[in-house]
Amino acid sequence: MTQFKVTPWDVEGLVDYKKLIEMFGTQPIDQPLLKRIEKHTGELHVFLRRGFAFSHRDMDKVLDDYEKGKGFFLYTGRGPSGNMTLGHLVPFLFTKWLQDKFGVNLYIEITDDEKFLVKDLELNEVQKYAEDNILDIAAVGFDSEKTFIFRDTEYIAHMYEDAIKVGKKINFSNVRAVFGFTNQTNIGMIFYPTLQIVPTLFEKKRCLIPAAIDQDPYWRVQRDIAESLGYHKAAAIHTKFLPSLQGPAGKMSTSDPHTAIYLTDSPEDVRRKIMKYAFSGGQPTVEEHRKKGGNPDVDTSFQWLYILFEEDDQRIEDIRNDYISGKLLTGELKEILIEKLTSFLKEHQKRKCKAERVAKKMKYTGKLAKRMWER
Amino acid sequence: MTQFKVTPWDVEGLVDYKKLIEMFGTQPIDQPLLKRIEKHTGELHVFLRRGFAFSHRDMDKVLDDYEKGKGFFLYTGRGPSGNMTLGHLVPFLFTKWLQDKFGVNLYIEITDDEKFLVKDLELNEVQKYAEDNILDIAAVGFDSEKTFIFRDTEYIAHMYEDAIKVGKKINFSNVRAVFGFTNQTNIGMIFYPTLQIVPTLFEKKRCLIPAAIDQDPYWRVQRDIAESLGYHKAAAIHTKFLPSLQGPAGKMSTSDPHTAIYLTDSPEDVRRKIMKYAFSGGQPTVEEHRKKGGNPDVDTSFQWLYILFEEDDQRIEDIRNDYISGKLLTGELKEILIEKLTSFLKEHQKRKCKAERVAKKMKYTGKLAKRMWER
Repeated sequence: MTQFKVTPWDVEGLVDYKKLIEMFGTQPIDQPLLKRIEKHTGELHVFLRRGFAFSHRDMDKVLDDYEKGKGFFLYTGRGPSGNMTLGHLVPFLFTKWLQDKFGVNLYIEITDDEKFLVKDLELNEVQKYAEDNILDIAAVGFDSEKTFIFRDTEYIAHMYEDAIKVGKKINFSNVRAVFGFTNQTNIGMIFYPTLQIVPTLFEKKRCLIPAAIDQDPYWRVQRDIAESLGYHKAAAIHTKFLPSLQGPAGKMSTSDPHTAIYLTDSPEDVRRKIMKYAFSGGQPTVEEHRKKGGNPDVDTSFQWLYILFEEDDQRIEDIRNDYISGKLLTGELKEILIEKLTSFLKEHQKRKCKAERVAKKMKYTGKLAKRMWER
Repeated sequence: MTQFKVTPWDVEGLVDYKKLIEMFGTQPIDQPLLKRIEKHTGELHVFLRRGFAFSHRDMDKVLDDYEKGKGFFLYTGRGPSGNMTLGHLVPFLFTKWLQDKFGVNLYIEITDDEKFLVKDLELNEVQKYAEDNILDIAAVGFDSEKTFIFRDTEYIAHMYEDAIKVGKKINFSNVRAVFGFTNQTNIGMIFYPTLQIVPTLFEKKRCLIPAAIDQDPYWRVQRDIAESLGYHKAAAIHTKFLPSLQGPAGKMSTSDPHTAIYLTDSPEDVRRKIMKYAFSGGQPTVEEHRKKGGNPDVDTSFQWLYILFEEDDQRIEDIRNDYISGKLLTGELKEILIEKLTSFLKEHQKRKCKAERVAKKMKYTGKLAKRMWER
C-alpha cells in the first residue's frame, strides 16, 4: 500500500521517490546520463549532483537532438494561487541553469485560469498574484530575449486553436484516469489540461520540461497524443519536493504560512520561522546530542542547505559529519541556514525590485516574446 | 414513450412540439403574448402568425424590460459544419425581423470550435465554412452598426475569462444530464457549452435568443447560473424545424445533399430537387387526387409555402383549400413553390455577392463590432 499521494493539486505523506518512478513509469537519472549532461555543461548543477533532480523522460533524446544540432526548448510554469514561497522558486532556479548552459528558448506559463478554477479565489485575485509572481520569476534572471512568460487568460487567443486540437483527442475517461477527475469536477478544470499541454507544441523541436514530479500526469497525456498532432513527445526532468519547514512529509504548502518561507520574508521572519518551526533531526538536550549526534536526513535545516544553499561539496559533507557526530548542535545548524537563507532572500528581493523592466521584455517586448505575440 | 429525439446535435423522428414544451419546461406562445408583441411591432411575423415560432422562455419579461425602457439584446448563432441550407437560414430571417422591429443590438456566434470538436473535420475546413456562412448571414440584411458576428476561435480572448467563470459553476454531472455527454465525450466538447453561454452575458440587459428549440438545453444551463454571476436569465423564442424535403420527420439535414436545398442551389437544382424529392401529400393519380384531394399538413411544398414563402394569409388559405379539394394538383403546388423558392434564392445570392462589405462591418468595423473588439 502506498503511504503517500502525488497529484498536480495535492502531495501528501512521506514520498517514496523510487516507488514514484515505478508508479509514473519514468526513468531514474543515472551516472551515464549525468556524465553525458556534464559533457555539455562543464559542471553539474547541485540538484543533479545531489539527486534532487532524480527522474526524467527522454532526457537522452533531448541530448541526441542537441548533439545533432536540432536543438530543443524549455518549458515550465507556475500556478499563481498566492505569494511565492522558496519551494515555488526551486524549479525556476534549475531551469535558469539549463537555459544558461544550453542557450535555448524558455516558455513560462502562468496558469491563472487553472488556479481560478480549482481554488476558492476570484479571477482578479488570481491575476494579481500572477503579476506579482511574474516579478519573482523574472528576478531569477532568465535570458530576457529567449524567455516568454505569459498568463493563460491573456495569451489564450494564441493557444485556443491548439487547445481544441488537443482536447479533441482526450476524453473524460482519460482525464478521470490520469487526474482523478470526478463527476463533480467543473468543466473548466476538465478542459484545462489542454492548456498545460499546448506550450509543449510551441516549437517543432523537442520540449524539455523541468518541473516537480507532481506535474508529470500532464506530460503522460501529452506523450499519448503529441505525435498524432505532428509534434514530439515532451521530455521532462523531475525534481523532488523541497521538504517543508515542519518536516520531510509533503511539499511546502502555501496554505499554512507557518510551514513556508515566503520570498518576501524579512530577516526577522526567517529567524523566527527557522528557530520555531524548522524540523530538527537533533537530540532533545545538548548532552544527548553531543553523545548520540543528529540525523541530517530528516533535518530541514540540513536538507535546505544540502539542496539549495551550500553548493561546496566538501563544506556540506563537513556539516553533515559534524551533525552526525554531535559536534554541531541544532541551533548552530539553524544559524548556518538562517545566514544563507537571509542573504539569498535579500538578493532575490533586490532583484525583484528591479525586475519590472526585464519582466516586460519576457512578457511583451523581448525577441522571443515579440515573436510569440505576432504568430 | 417518445418517438422522437431533440438534442443540439441530433433531431430524429416526427417531433411532437406540444410534448417538447412539456419536456423542456418552456411556455407556449399564446394569443395574449402575440397581442402584446403586435402592440410594439405593428404586425406579426409570419412565423408568429402561423405558429412556427411556438414556444418561449421569459418573452413576457423581455417585453416588460422593453416597455420600461430597459431594453434587451438579441443573440443567435450558427455551427459552420458545411454550406448553409434553407433550413439554416430560418432563425436568421426571424431574428432580422425582431431587430428591425425593436431596434436592438444583435450578437451572432459562429461556433467553429464546436463543429471542429464534434465533426470529423479539420479546423481549417470548419473555418472556411465559417467565413462563407458569415456572408450568407450578412446577406440577410441585419443592421450593420448594431450587429456583431464573431467566430469563437477568433474572438476567444474576449470570451475566455467569462467562459471559465461560467465553467467553474458547471460540473460533469450537469452536462452529462443536460447534453447526454458520456465518458467518451472529448474534453473540448465538455467545455464548449461555456462558450455558447458567454454571449448571453455580453450586456447587462436581458438577452433574447431566437433559435430552433434544439438549442434550448444551453439556455437551461445558462438560466441555472446567470443570476449568480450578476446577469439575467436568458430569454428565448423557439422555432420549429423546417420540414425536410423528403417529409416532415426530422430537420433538414446537411449530411444528405438530396434532402436539403442549399443557398447556392441554381434554379435547375431547385426544380430537380423539388420535383424529384419533395414529399407530397397528394394522391397517386390525377383522377384519385381530383376525387379525394391532398393533405397539406404532410406536404413539404405546402409547408414551405406556409412557413416561408406565401405571407398572404388569404392566398395561402386558398392554396390549402384548393389542395384539399383536389382542385390543385401536386405538380401545380410544386410549381408555385419552385417559383417562390427560385426567386428567393436568386435574391439571396445577389445579396451574398455584395455582402463582403457589410460582413466586414458586422465583424470588425461597425459601431457594435468595434466596441466588442475594444472591450
